Amino acid sequence: MVLFGRGLLAAGRIALRRPTIARHLQYDAFVDRHIGPRRLEQQQMLDFIGYKDLDDLTGTNVPNMIKLERAMELPAPLDEYKMLKELEAIASQNKIYRSYIGMGYYDTIVPAVISRNILQNIGWISQYTPYQAEISQGRLESLLNFQTMRFQIAEMTGLPTTNASLLDEATASAEAVALAARTTKRNKVIVDSFCHPQNLDVIKTRSDPLGIDIEVCDAVEGFEFDEKVAAVVVQYPNTEGRIHQFDELIEKAHKNKSLVIMVCDLLSLTILRSPGDLGADIAVGSAQRFGVPLGYGGPHAGFMAVAKNDSKNALGRNMPGRIIGVTKDANGNRALRLALQTREQHIRRDKATSNICTAQALLANMSAMYAVYHGPQRLTEIARGIHKSTAYLATHLRNAGHEIVHKEYFDTLKVRLKNGEALEELKKRAEEMKMNFRFYDNGDVGVSLDETVKSEDLMDIIYTFNGTTEKDVTKLREERWEVACPLIGNSPHSRSSLFLQHPVFNTYHSEQQLVRYMKRLENKDVSLVHSMIPLGSCTMKLNASAELIPITWPTLSSIHPFAPIEQAKGYSQIFGDLEHWLCEITGYDNFSLQPNSGANGEYAGLLAIRNYLIHKGQEQRNICLIPTSAHGTNPASAQMANMKVVVVDSDHHGNINYKDLAAKAEKYSNQLAAIMVTYPSTHGVFESSIRDVCDKVHEHGGQVYLDGANMNAQVGLCRPGDYGSDVSHLNLHKTFCIPHGGGGPGVGPIGVKKHLAPFLPGHSVIPVQGRKAGSVASAPYGSASILAITWAYIRMMGATGLREASQVAILNANYMAKRLENEYRIVYKDEQGLVAHEFIMDCKPFKKHGIEVVDIAKRLMDYGFHSPTMSWPVHDCLMIEPTESAFYLGFTEDKGEMDRLVDALLAIREEIRQVENGTLDKHLNPLKMAPHTLEKVTSDTWNMPYSRELAAFPKPWCSHKAWPTVGRVDDQYGDRNLVCTCPPIESYQ
Amino acid sequence: MVLFGRGLLAAGRIALRRPTIARHLQYDAFVDRHIGPRRLEQQQMLDFIGYKDLDDLTGTNVPNMIKLERAMELPAPLDEYKMLKELEAIASQNKIYRSYIGMGYYDTIVPAVISRNILQNIGWISQYTPYQAEISQGRLESLLNFQTMRFQIAEMTGLPTTNASLLDEATASAEAVALAARTTKRNKVIVDSFCHPQNLDVIKTRSDPLGIDIEVCDAVEGFEFDEKVAAVVVQYPNTEGRIHQFDELIEKAHKNKSLVIMVCDLLSLTILRSPGDLGADIAVGSAQRFGVPLGYGGPHAGFMAVAKNDSKNALGRNMPGRIIGVTKDANGNRALRLALQTREQHIRRDKATSNICTAQALLANMSAMYAVYHGPQRLTEIARGIHKSTAYLATHLRNAGHEIVHKEYFDTLKVRLKNGEALEELKKRAEEMKMNFRFYDNGDVGVSLDETVKSEDLMDIIYTFNGTTEKDVTKLREERWEVACPLIGNSPHSRSSLFLQHPVFNTYHSEQQLVRYMKRLENKDVSLVHSMIPLGSCTMKLNASAELIPITWPTLSSIHPFAPIEQAKGYSQIFGDLEHWLCEITGYDNFSLQPNSGANGEYAGLLAIRNYLIHKGQEQRNICLIPTSAHGTNPASAQMANMKVVVVDSDHHGNINYKDLAAKAEKYSNQLAAIMVTYPSTHGVFESSIRDVCDKVHEHGGQVYLDGANMNAQVGLCRPGDYGSDVSHLNLHKTFCIPHGGGGPGVGPIGVKKHLAPFLPGHSVIPVQGRKAGSVASAPYGSASILAITWAYIRMMGATGLREASQVAILNANYMAKRLENEYRIVYKDEQGLVAHEFIMDCKPFKKHGIEVVDIAKRLMDYGFHSPTMSWPVHDCLMIEPTESAFYLGFTEDKGEMDRLVDALLAIREEIRQVENGTLDKHLNPLKMAPHTLEKVTSDTWNMPYSRELAAFPKPWCSHKAWPTVGRVDDQYGDRNLVCTCPPIESYQ
Repeated sequence: MVLFGRGLLAAGRIALRRPTIARHLQYDAFVDRHIGPRRLEQQQMLDFIGYKDLDDLTGTNVPNMIKLERAMELPAPLDEYKMLKELEAIASQNKIYRSYIGMGYYDTIVPAVISRNILQNIGWISQYTPYQAEISQGRLESLLNFQTMRFQIAEMTGLPTTNASLLDEATASAEAVALAARTTKRNKVIVDSFCHPQNLDVIKTRSDPLGIDIEVCDAVEGFEFDEKVAAVVVQYPNTEGRIHQFDELIEKAHKNKSLVIMVCDLLSLTILRSPGDLGADIAVGSAQRFGVPLGYGGPHAGFMAVAKNDSKNALGRNMPGRIIGVTKDANGNRALRLALQTREQHIRRDKATSNICTAQALLANMSAMYAVYHGPQRLTEIARGIHKSTAYLATHLRNAGHEIVHKEYFDTLKVRLKNGEALEELKKRAEEMKMNFRFYDNGDVGVSLDETVKSEDLMDIIYTFNGTTEKDVTKLREERWEVACPLIGNSPHSRSSLFLQHPVFNTYHSEQQLVRYMKRLENKDVSLVHSMIPLGSCTMKLNASAELIPITWPTLSSIHPFAPIEQAKGYSQIFGDLEHWLCEITGYDNFSLQPNSGANGEYAGLLAIRNYLIHKGQEQRNICLIPTSAHGTNPASAQMANMKVVVVDSDHHGNINYKDLAAKAEKYSNQLAAIMVTYPSTHGVFESSIRDVCDKVHEHGGQVYLDGANMNAQVGLCRPGDYGSDVSHLNLHKTFCIPHGGGGPGVGPIGVKKHLAPFLPGHSVIPVQGRKAGSVASAPYGSASILAITWAYIRMMGATGLREASQVAILNANYMAKRLENEYRIVYKDEQGLVAHEFIMDCKPFKKHGIEVVDIAKRLMDYGFHSPTMSWPVHDCLMIEPTESAFYLGFTEDKGEMDRLVDALLAIREEIRQVENGTLDKHLNPLKMAPHTLEKVTSDTWNMPYSRELAAFPKPWCSHKAWPTVGRVDDQYGDRNLVCTCPPIESYQ
Repeated sequence: MVLFGRGLLAAGRIALRRPTIARHLQYDAFVDRHIGPRRLEQQQMLDFIGYKDLDDLTGTNVPNMIKLERAMELPAPLDEYKMLKELEAIASQNKIYRSYIGMGYYDTIVPAVISRNILQNIGWISQYTPYQAEISQGRLESLLNFQTMRFQIAEMTGLPTTNASLLDEATASAEAVALAARTTKRNKVIVDSFCHPQNLDVIKTRSDPLGIDIEVCDAVEGFEFDEKVAAVVVQYPNTEGRIHQFDELIEKAHKNKSLVIMVCDLLSLTILRSPGDLGADIAVGSAQRFGVPLGYGGPHAGFMAVAKNDSKNALGRNMPGRIIGVTKDANGNRALRLALQTREQHIRRDKATSNICTAQALLANMSAMYAVYHGPQRLTEIARGIHKSTAYLATHLRNAGHEIVHKEYFDTLKVRLKNGEALEELKKRAEEMKMNFRFYDNGDVGVSLDETVKSEDLMDIIYTFNGTTEKDVTKLREERWEVACPLIGNSPHSRSSLFLQHPVFNTYHSEQQLVRYMKRLENKDVSLVHSMIPLGSCTMKLNASAELIPITWPTLSSIHPFAPIEQAKGYSQIFGDLEHWLCEITGYDNFSLQPNSGANGEYAGLLAIRNYLIHKGQEQRNICLIPTSAHGTNPASAQMANMKVVVVDSDHHGNINYKDLAAKAEKYSNQLAAIMVTYPSTHGVFESSIRDVCDKVHEHGGQVYLDGANMNAQVGLCRPGDYGSDVSHLNLHKTFCIPHGGGGPGVGPIGVKKHLAPFLPGHSVIPVQGRKAGSVASAPYGSASILAITWAYIRMMGATGLREASQVAILNANYMAKRLENEYRIVYKDEQGLVAHEFIMDCKPFKKHGIEVVDIAKRLMDYGFHSPTMSWPVHDCLMIEPTESAFYLGFTEDKGEMDRLVDALLAIREEIRQVENGTLDKHLNPLKMAPHTLEKVTSDTWNMPYSRELAAFPKPWCSHKAWPTVGRVDDQYGDRNLVCTCPPIESYQ
């Protein structure tokens, strides 16, 4: 920024930091590490936009009537060292027992190389969802591995279309039910009573508003098919560990034109016949035991794969979730990208069939790498080893007089003790051995083994059941491996089809090779380690190391979600603190931490409203008002909660058209269920009418749902609960520093006013504060382990730090907007001419010269930047959100992030002008040809009418940019020729 | 490798792994992760070179008479999961007390962002020493930060020449003494008796063989200068915490033309007058408390900075250790590289004045980043905070009746208790509080504070001393900050000069900025995450994640090296295991783990020989025979141990000329002290005469020193202790998987036969198995914390795994040699036509066409490879060592590392041929112009007579290579214009 140039060069010599006096007690206050611009720099920016100080600025644009006039009551901030000590003490209250509970969660050995180079590597966890394919080829490849036919899910299940992860097994099951009902146009689904209880629970919760009748029964014992039956859902192996033969059932179902949904255990499929072999139509499940820690319930990657059941591939085309597809780029090279995006809920809005937005990309990548590292033979050996141990255990328990209830099992036994009183003794010994089992209501005991089980553990289990064990461990170890060829091998359940034959699963089996493969992929992707990712509405801010370190502590990562709650006292305290703090931050009375994505939080919030209204006897209230500018998941969630969407207009300032709102509230007064509104608006403005909007809806008996996506502009400045909202979800992966993981995990807790609290989600296995409502996720606390990230962030920032973060986020946005406004029209501002924490730039005027917004987005890659949000919420615009972590230091040679981005946009504007005036060709110009790959600009046959240097290095700082690894991807080609698995090796030659 | 091409493509579909039967108990045997080529691939390579199996191969080239005919007795291997569990249990026997011992080691807060992104990041720890500057600009910049004038060491000490780290404070002190004696040509050095005892000890140990008289006395109380006094050494603040005024002493010394060496505490210099301010000549010390964990003694970065004491900068030019210098590259751009390399010991051999080879690059980088992150103001605040706490503590102890012995202090108090009996009480309370203090012989108690000390700790310390404390912590916290302006601020000791004014220390103060800065540097460097680094004699093999994880466990990283040994039981077990295992591997009787580099191990080994001979009354034995091919550190170490080097010729096979050896042993029979020999030879051959060589030397009363640099070819196959060696050092950072860290840390333990055991290094503070000899490093167990890496490696590999690793290392080398031998002459082979684990390729024939070996080395960068070792041990040659971890998979499209490297070398040979036949220009060809930067090949003004694609992408796989970031560096220019600190900001403009 030349404006400040010379004079400040000298000032730069003085360390630019906050005054020492104010913080002399804390030389290392975390807020100074989290917020990008130094105090002096903030002052310079304030001067530039014409405000005295931060309070002056935010005092101006936050409407008076909603201002929080007091400091939030949060504990005084700790620096990272003290925070880690405190959290460590809390976490160590968790007791880590050996867990043989099963029920969909199994201990697993996370290969150290994957833990360290993916889970603990900010280069793999801080990317955004791969919408900008050209700078996302690394994780796209890994996600393609996850979903490839030749890989676990598709191939193991023998089914041809698959997606790149869902939230968890239970939501995947519920999505499968909805998909089946939709494609068969039938509304009854039979669910086997031997599914895991949490799957049953979520299926019920989510099917009810959609009008799908769920009939729970013993699906094997038999029931009558009728023409209403859309599908049958079975768990494989079932929750008691039993392996059924489903051939007959599947045959019957298909005769009845019903679908069969198998909820399966991925690891068992290496030795069991796959759903594909069996002819099932939909397979879902969790990839957790493929190298993802228990984490007290999550996050883990759920999955879905579907058969091509008709010539149109209806199941495949209607499948929810993101699909990675293969296509080609502008240079004719192979490229990957998100396929079939027109299916996505943010485009289909209230026509959407699912509201899934965030997936579990990071966890899918971990599981994919686990399979890449182990390969088919080792995976089979893991499964065989577990099965052998189980068979060995069964023999010893049977010999001791216990009954093994089911004869056909993989890793799970249901044990009927030889006499009833033995149970209490067993429980005592289990406590002594620090072991958890599953205790059935009838006194039976369940035991599920996993790959961590050593001979010593087996000996302890036998002791726990039998009260004695005469073996020494060496003898046991020998015996274990001499166990008669286990059951599955000689049974009709035995798998014969090959799987994971693709070279990617048969090459990287030494650690050095895997490290290089992972690094090569990592280096293809732009993440926060390279530059700011200025996505409007997505709040990509610092994910600090100190926040991330705890999630791999065994005290947090190694607990089974269904362990007795007295073993999870550390977690209880973290949840309690977090709920308390989030209430204080938002002004709500209660929080649920269960929803494991923003969209899932939205959904849970709307369900709470719906159930509250039903409880009040107002079932007829089913209209949900949604402004035109809303996030696409809003109408999608409303639809799923069985609400009818009525759209409210915006005025020409981009604000909610209050008149239209009032009219519609009036019109639907008796039916009005809710309004869904985002604040500050998705147009990047603090609307002054927000309180009136809330009041108007309340006046007509509706509830206010306030989408928390933009909470980053509000923390410490105003609180939704104060100005009239009844319920919000927060995106902890936006405002509260959970990294985006390249497309998940996300966490979407919901806060509610007191009257809605009874309708927050409960859980069928672990009681959650006595809440009775159905659950929306597999685990009682959703993605529990990563909640520690948010805990750490709030604990280190404290009330003033959080407030300052909001203020600087607003300052940064206004600074950038002002620097850009002479060249790009800022579409919406408030009455004072200010934006909130993000703003929208108009690119429509360039269309007449042939330049589309996508050209600007792709051209930004040549400057080393990830594009801002494109064409949302306003077509042909870019929405920029710098956040408080973006780095300003405009006066050094090595310009700060924000000034570099501004300079890039200004330079692009100049390029557009050259297209306008003919200096650059109308078609062959750097914008239309963007992005330029290294291969392209070093080619001997460069034939563009502009120079290579202009293409690749339009600014000096581009010398250390991250390069796009493919040219512009061809979406149409890819969608026409849908390939969503690794291409066969021959095609590489 | 087309040879195997098509047929195996199909075979490739089958997972290539070891037979399941042999290892069915361990599906995840670590040996399979560590060794690159799969079993089937090994068989293909064996077929190619004409051997049946691995035993057939190594049975052929390891001479019969030295073969180890039994399996090593080591514990059965564990997979990484079990190993980590076992090591965790061992480590948890260490008791972590709060340490207020001081004496050069202080607890520190490692910023999480540095711990995670440098210490735990394989991209920052697996590079080699930056000899290939063009692909090492990242760590060169960080090391320049470490040494820059504007940075801590040079600037803080106000001295103008500095190096990029030494082994530790004590060796740095001893090096300073030697440097002073050398440049002043005097041989008496006064050492203040208030230096830390370990510094005194190492100074004495190392000065004695050099004939330097060390006089220990109270240097402040006074002594008589005479014309023999080369220098005075003082500790600042001294070991009891006292700050002296040295002005008078320095003035006197300079009058006497003696130098002043200050051993200083880096952190204190932010508020104390610097050695430079005071006019000292040499400053040394440790950078440990700048963000490097205690680690029970190491590794940490020592440092040295010297004044320009004469017009020739004699001190600077004679300073030991590596110096990073600024120069320019072939394109005229700024570039960094190792400066003044002709000073280095490996070139000067027995003319060398120091044998320092490995430095502490990784730790220097951590400390540099600590300073970059904190900047001058925060560093000052840290120091002030500690000083204030100390002043507060002093007041409270004085009020309770204790005497504070020294009135002028920074962070350390010497406390005389008010009555003698109080000591036992105090010790009891200290135990109860889990605190360590320094206990002086006279009953005084020392207490040193550090940046981790919180108010709660102060309260506990006061309680421990006084038996009571009436304060509550809030009150204490307030009081502490109201402490009267502490002493230093108002004293003549107060620093007024500015420091760390360079922008690099005033820019990256938010975490996001620092992460991006570190990532930008990381991405400039080639490390093992990119490709194999095939350095002959340097054994760059896999550094596995599971081996690295334990070093950051608090149970290993947070112990003070002088803590009572009963608190270090975990470490004792690790050391005991390791010594035991290394004895079994090498055939020696005893091991010392103290030496913290290979060269330091060599030195300690020679000292043991020397002292053994003296003990036997054979002081006259001072001749050390060294073959011409020896590593340059060999003669340098011999010289430092006061031995005279006599060179032994090689025959034309590269072997030791036995006749010449016999003649010289005969000639010097009475004076013969030792021979230093490397095995397999540095020429890459198992010499069959090794046993005869040893026998001949013994016959004449000499000892055999066998350099363990090539141990990677021997483990499990033959043992130095069996075939006649008396002593060896091992490079744990070569054979035993400690990463190179970009130029350190290294660990060089020495193994000896029984008769030498009494002469292994002891320690002045912590007894080491009763050993009485002087120490060679600051800490009793040197770089203790990283010994866990080697422990883990051996524990996971087991006897058969280690042996197999040696065999595959030999196989890989022979495979590569055979693939190359038609195009490059392999200089030395054994009688069977085999090489050992490395081999030398002749590049001399190309000189007549103007192609030098350096052109090939730099051209390899264009192919994405780090050069093999250049011109050592034979001029104009390359020495290649692939190691067992290098990855073979020659038959897929994505070729394996080894075949890619071979193909690159063959392609380069073809390019040379084109120069020979005139197809390529004699001067402007891709070899002479190499390496090619991105900037160069994308430039609009490309004017080479060959194509850009040939320059940048000579092979398809180069599309994902790591690029050199500067063109070929100009060493001459840099050495003529020596700049070894960050260039001023103006020069960037």
